[in-house]
Amino acid sequence: MDNTRRKFISGSLALAAGTVASVAVPLQPEKSKTPLVHHVFFWLKNPGSTADRDGIVEGLKTLRKIGAIKELRIGVVASTEKRDVVDNSWAVSELMFFEDLAGQAIYQDHPIHQKFIKDCSHLWDKVIVYDAMDV
Amino acid sequence: MDNTRRKFISGSLALAAGTVASVAVPLQPEKSKTPLVHHVFFWLKNPGSTADRDGIVEGLKTLRKIGAIKELRIGVVASTEKRDVVDNSWAVSELMFFEDLAGQAIYQDHPIHQKFIKDCSHLWDKVIVYDAMDV
Repeated sequence: MDNTRRKFISGSLALAAGTVASVAVPLQPEKSKTPLVHHVFFWLKNPGSTADRDGIVEGLKTLRKIGAIKELRIGVVASTEKRDVVDNSWAVSELMFFEDLAGQAIYQDHPIHQKFIKDCSHLWDKVIVYDAMDV
Repeated sequence: MDNTRRKFISGSLALAAGTVASVAVPLQPEKSKTPLVHHVFFWLKNPGSTADRDGIVEGLKTLRKIGAIKELRIGVVASTEKRDVVDNSWAVSELMFFEDLAGQAIYQDHPIHQKFIKDCSHLWDKVIVYDAMDV
């Protein structure tokens, strides 16, 4: 692609982006392409062990190779204000987005997921899973 | 914009998108702009009440006007496979993304959030909040 064409395309993109922005800036699209939210929290067998926490984090990173997972965030407890309603007793979280129930089922049975469980399940004591569908 | 120009821009966008896709398709950017995840689950005072569930959903929609919330998803229990680790006893979830702890603090104190609590808290029996920071 020569420079003139590249510049023209760049300009078109900026124009298109500007047009969209002036029409509406939705916080969330009306229909998300990944409406299925899968959020898992892990409690460590050895609470407070940074090594064990990091072991789970590293294990979770291997899940990025699973195509059915459209987005994956790996988290640790945030230092927000302590309140009665806030559960900060867990150690690691995985937050995934899927297109549909079928995608989530593919993930559950995927060999990479099964390997993660085999390799890391000795590190956790408890797991809670929340599966939500966007409304 | 005439039709020829519209088609050209449309083609340019498709070309540009194709170019990006061939370079890399990251599941998650290295550094998210909204690394603070705030996930709240609500249990109803009247379990099974669709009206009460929808009341909370409608209340949560008002939060979209709070600028500090960079993305908001409102969910209900997904019909994934029943497993021991899956908690499906809740009724409504709110999943929010913030840029940082300060953004989350602004949200907590925001009048629209306070109004939501005032208007809807009679509908829920229990709330659990998980605050995670991306690693």
